[in-house]
Amino acid sequence: MTDFEVTAEPGVPQVQTARTFDAPLDLVYRAFTEPDLLVQWLGPHGYTMTIDRYDVHDGGTYRYTHTDDKGNAWAFHGVFHGDPSTDGMVQTFEFEGAPGHVSMDTVTFDEQDGRTTVRTNSVFQSVEDRDAMVTSGMETGMREGYERLEELLVRELKARHD
Amino acid sequence: MTDFEVTAEPGVPQVQTARTFDAPLDLVYRAFTEPDLLVQWLGPHGYTMTIDRYDVHDGGTYRYTHTDDKGNAWAFHGVFHGDPSTDGMVQTFEFEGAPGHVSMDTVTFDEQDGRTTVRTNSVFQSVEDRDAMVTSGMETGMREGYERLEELLVRELKARHD
Repeated sequence: MTDFEVTAEPGVPQVQTARTFDAPLDLVYRAFTEPDLLVQWLGPHGYTMTIDRYDVHDGGTYRYTHTDDKGNAWAFHGVFHGDPSTDGMVQTFEFEGAPGHVSMDTVTFDEQDGRTTVRTNSVFQSVEDRDAMVTSGMETGMREGYERLEELLVRELKARHD
Repeated sequence: MTDFEVTAEPGVPQVQTARTFDAPLDLVYRAFTEPDLLVQWLGPHGYTMTIDRYDVHDGGTYRYTHTDDKGNAWAFHGVFHGDPSTDGMVQTFEFEGAPGHVSMDTVTFDEQDGRTTVRTNSVFQSVEDRDAMVTSGMETGMREGYERLEELLVRELKARHD
């Protein structure tokens, strides 16, 4: 178990996170870019994710929905800037419950001694937008999603060695 | 002649601008979204703009180059988030001379008494990126581009009434 670090300074429209996983970079990167893996971990515990589209290339768009066990649904969409690589993926992000409020996320991947650190950098159109996202449970959602990702990576690594 | 306002607070990865033009919203919006008009004004005085692509729709990509009279060239590319409208256009932006550094720009248009105010909101991945963009002459480039836009709007309005 490693720490999930979140940096969100007062008055700055930005959130940065870092988390290290006990898995090689190529597998972690696949979990962020391949829909059949992404759908298994993104989002809080107990939610079901449905991916309408996830076209990981320059100008590709994505849209997905998280649904809880009562049937409440939260949909998100955005577009990829540039062709993502292990050096980083850049994408816009809009929660359809707050249309017109868009952020831009950058994810980078670094491997050291077989472990991979994932860093995210999200910038928002305003501090108010950033604060609303943090208040809405962004940190809990990401923390729980990463816990699910850790479980997925363990399963995938076990399958590799079986 | 109206003022060009720029807000770039210390320690915040953001730049906001505002400029009012003596022209109706529909014409100003066309000048931002139609390549044959955009090419006539975007960029500083004395530069030639070449547009490789400018696909103004969700997931559409753009790329253009500014060339000075000595043949020096600066190329930029990005992607549109969502279908732009007069309520706003959102796009990513990357100067190819500094690959991997991406910002997200939001442009909104408001008309009052036949005059249109254009507001831009640019957020950067870091304060360092923001400072580098400001230091590189962003304000002068935008100010001169808007002077050229003002001239273009006068020409277009004259043509409408001839």
